[in-house]
Formats: sequence, C-alpha cells, structure tokens
Amino acid sequence: MELKEIYAPVSEELQQVTTMLRSVGNDVENPWLAEQLKYIIEGSGKIIRPALVLFSGKIFDSPLDRLLPMAVAVELMHTATLIHDDAIDKADTRRGRATINSLWGNEIAILMGDYLFARAGVYSTESNTVRAIRLFSETLSIIASGEISQFRGAYNLNQSREEYFRRIYRKTGSLFSLSTQSGAIIGGAEEEHIAIMREYGENCGIAFQIVDDIMDFTSTPEKLGKPVGSDLRQGTLTLPAMMVLERYPDNNPVRKLFETKDESYSSAALDIILNSSIIPDCYAVATEFRDRGCNKLSILPKNSYRRSLEALGEFIINQGR
Amino acid sequence: MELKEIYAPVSEELQQVTTMLRSVGNDVENPWLAEQLKYIIEGSGKIIRPALVLFSGKIFDSPLDRLLPMAVAVELMHTATLIHDDAIDKADTRRGRATINSLWGNEIAILMGDYLFARAGVYSTESNTVRAIRLFSETLSIIASGEISQFRGAYNLNQSREEYFRRIYRKTGSLFSLSTQSGAIIGGAEEEHIAIMREYGENCGIAFQIVDDIMDFTSTPEKLGKPVGSDLRQGTLTLPAMMVLERYPDNNPVRKLFETKDESYSSAALDIILNSSIIPDCYAVATEFRDRGCNKLSILPKNSYRRSLEALGEFIINQGR
Repeated sequence: MELKEIYAPVSEELQQVTTMLRSVGNDVENPWLAEQLKYIIEGSGKIIRPALVLFSGKIFDSPLDRLLPMAVAVELMHTATLIHDDAIDKADTRRGRATINSLWGNEIAILMGDYLFARAGVYSTESNTVRAIRLFSETLSIIASGEISQFRGAYNLNQSREEYFRRIYRKTGSLFSLSTQSGAIIGGAEEEHIAIMREYGENCGIAFQIVDDIMDFTSTPEKLGKPVGSDLRQGTLTLPAMMVLERYPDNNPVRKLFETKDESYSSAALDIILNSSIIPDCYAVATEFRDRGCNKLSILPKNSYRRSLEALGEFIINQGR
Repeated sequence: MELKEIYAPVSEELQQVTTMLRSVGNDVENPWLAEQLKYIIEGSGKIIRPALVLFSGKIFDSPLDRLLPMAVAVELMHTATLIHDDAIDKADTRRGRATINSLWGNEIAILMGDYLFARAGVYSTESNTVRAIRLFSETLSIIASGEISQFRGAYNLNQSREEYFRRIYRKTGSLFSLSTQSGAIIGGAEEEHIAIMREYGENCGIAFQIVDDIMDFTSTPEKLGKPVGSDLRQGTLTLPAMMVLERYPDNNPVRKLFETKDESYSSAALDIILNSSIIPDCYAVATEFRDRGCNKLSILPKNSYRRSLEALGEFIINQGR
C-alpha cells in the first residue's frame, strides 16, 4: 500500500497539520528567522510521526483541537533533533537539501534546534494534557541521552545486539512511542490500551530504524540524500555491520575500519553486506519487531485507523525494498 | 543585604531545590552521563531564578510540591542555555571551571544542553499547571530567538538602545519573568497580580543583565571566571560600549574594533569606559529598570517574601560595585 492510501482516513487532519507546520514562522518577528523556518519546514519528510498521533488519537476519540497541536509538536521535535544531529555529524545534506549547519554554521544550527524544541514544547502544551506533555519532554531526554551514548560509543566494536536495539529504541522508537501514546492519552484511553499503543510505537519505531540502517547500505545517494555507507564511516555500528562482525571472524573490514578509522575499508564491508544473506536477515529482524508491535492491535476495535496502523507496519518493512 | 539574608524566608525550600538539583543524575543509567551531570550541577551559581519562583509562589500560597519542581526547572533551563552559549562562544571557562565544550567537545555540549532542556521540561510538568508549563516552553523560544538575533547581530554597530533592551529582555528578563510569573500562576493568583510579577521579573532581569554587562568591563578575571571585555571582543554590543559609541563620534575604538575585528582596540575602549561617567550612567539605567520592576510590589501584602523581592532588586544593582 502507498503511504497516501494508508494516510487516507486522516488525510484532512494531516492537511491541517501541514498547514500548521507551514505557519510556524508566521508570528516570528525576526524576518530572517521566519524565512529559515520556512526552509526547514519545507524539508519535512513523510510526516509519519504526526500520522501516528492522528491514528492513535482517532482510535480513542481524542478531541481534534488537542490532537493536532501534539501532531505538530512531534514533527517539530523530530526536525529539531535532525538539525542538531546534522551539526554534530557535520553533514552537508539531508534529504538532498543543504543542512542548516552547512548554510549558516554550527552556532545557528544549535540555536535553531533549541528554538524548534521550544516551539514544539509550546505546541505540546496545547494538548492540555499534562501526562502527554510530560511524556513529550521525557522522550526528548531519552533521545538526547541515546545520542550521547551513540556519540561516545562511536568506533566501539564491543556492542551487543541488545545494546543496538536499546540505542535505536532511544533514537527512533521513543518518538514513535510518544506519538502513538500521546494520541491515546489525549483521548483518555484505558491503561491497557495506552500500553498497546506504546508497544506498537516502540517496536515499529525500532523496525523503522533497522530498515533505515539497512537502507544506508542498500540505497542510492539520490534516494538517501547523502552518501551510501555513512553510518559505518562515522563509526556507528548498525545491524548489518554487526552481522559482518559476527560472521567473519578473520580479516574483518568492519573491525579494520573501526580500529584504523581508514574509510577505504568501507567498500569491502559493503561488498560483504550486499553479497551475503545479511540484508534479508536484517529485514527478518525488523519484521520480528514490527510483528511484536502490531501483535496486540487486534484487541482494539477494527476500524480504518487500526487498519492504517497495520498497513503502516507493512509499509515500514517494505519501504527499503 | 547579603544574598543569604535575602534568601532566609525560603532557605529551607531552597535547600530542597539544591537537593533536587544534585539528584538529577541519580536515576540516569549511563554512568558517564550521571557523572557529567554532577559536575554541571556543582557549577550552579547564585540560584537567583529558583529563589524568584519560591518568593513569588509563597506570596500566592502555591503548594510546595508544585512549586519546587518549577524552581528546579528554571535553574536547569538556565544551565542548559549556558552550556549551549559556551559551545557557541567557544568559551573555555565559566565561573572559573572548565566548560563542557572545552572538556568534551561541541558535540557533547550540544547533546548535554538538549538533555538538560528535556529534563527541565519534565520538571516543569510536575507543576501540574498547563499555563506555567506553556510559559516555560515559550520562554525557551524567546531565549533561543534572542540568541539567534544576538549572534546574527554580532559586530553590528547600528543597534539602538531599544534593541539592546529587547535583546537582554530575551536573554535574561524572559527567564526572570518566567520564574516570578510561574510562582504566581501555580498559586492561582489573579491576573493583576500575575502582571505585577511579570513586570518585576522582566525589569529586574533587564537590570540584572545591564549590571552583568557592566561587570564584564569593571570586574576581574577571577571574579568573572573569564577574561575582562569578552563581550566587546566577541562583537556583542552592550550598554557601556553603546555609550562609548554615542559620546565619542571621532576616532572611536569600539567602532574600529567592530569594523576591523582587531581585538587590540579593546583596551582603548576599556580605558574610556572606566575613566568616564559611563559606568555610573549605566548603573543609573539599571536602577531605572529595577525601580520600574519593584514599583508595583507595594500592591501586594507586605510580608517577608515581598521584602525579599525588594531586597533582591537592591542586591542586583549593588552586586557589581
């Protein structure tokens, strides 16, 4: 199923979210800042996180005037984290567009990220639901602490799969989980149902990140909007590279790359990853997480929103293939 | 009056705030992060902002269990902004201690600031008062947009006093104002009284920043914990330097410094500032703002908390002398 079809049950609401996102710079007095905000918002991707807030909220009859600002808030938080990530990674492009740090320097990237975190926080308060607002800030602290661990763990070969899953939970699963949980919380859902939404978000977020990490090896620079194999060259150990380490004890290019930081080893690593069962095996792991996430959706009423969550689980796995 | 004496009516509560601040790293699973948080918190200064939350909250009988987390939140937000400021300014020391960026690099400084913003946000939600939580995020957006303006306006000679006051409102007045307003809001104060607290916070915050900007010229490296004249050399136009520009149209060292970025002009500028009426004139401007801030406190009941706010206004003006 195409994303458009999956989003159909909330297409009108997503349109409202897009309009709200585009208007973020409207009431800003500094015209330069307003222009930059426009540029940043135009670079938004698939807006999966706002869609998750809407599906989840709709399942539990959340009032739209509280739901829409939270959908805007999760997307803005996501955008802010990407701006800081790019500053940290010294990335020049993102989704094929120049990054804020490459255009205006790291100083502005830091401040622009801070500004967007703050604006995201303000939108989250318009949900008027303290528990959801709290979860919003807790999630940002999980993401930031995860990034600290990732940065400090760069070029570290001694990472278990559990540590990898924990890391990508923080990086991606936590924000997916905020999105699905907040929709339910705003609707006053029962604890059991909030837990189902949390599990969906966490596990499908992890699955999404595994596929993202696969695509860093299998995709093209055009589709990625950045060079292939960036993670590896930056010393970030992801599942495909982990499998190379596990399966080739001798003369291992990932080990050599991490030990010497000589990037020329990355092509040998890429060769192994692409010419082995590693990629399908990684997809199998992602599918396991996705299944775990969707498993308990069956307890919820069978409606178009639930069906979209299931279809999105399918989409997440298939997007890279 | 000494700060200790001013703080006396809330000394027990401030002790609780300090204990809460020191425990921020306690439930952190990453031991390295926990240790860094301890280092960061130990570097806290005069904790004026938490004291403002407490005074204001006590005047309006705010419940302590909602007030204390907001007091912790404003201090953590302040700390986070300083970490990002230091990363942007490439500062090596702050309050005589090594900065996070100098110890661990800009990447960790970015992430540590983000983490503290998030933790601050979580604490703010424990006030359980959506209006105060919203004001918390709005304030961060004001601070960040102010920093963007300041950074983009570096070495710009064409800044009016109004623009300077607006800039330091954003930098310092906004957070003072959050502190005093949130205490009142949490206590369910009347709008008229919340407005009085806002005016106190805004104006005394501006006065505080003017004195801080004075001290950047008049103090010692030991007391400042950084070199004298740093603002000027970084191209940040503050009130004393503005007065040099206004009063010495010919052969002006501030103008030359900003036009050439040749830091050797800073000693000539410093000479003029220290050997003219500029410093007392700047204090007079700060005192005007302080008076405006304290002006309407007389409407409030005359108790020890109100008296402390008045004494703090006095302290702010006298601290640099």
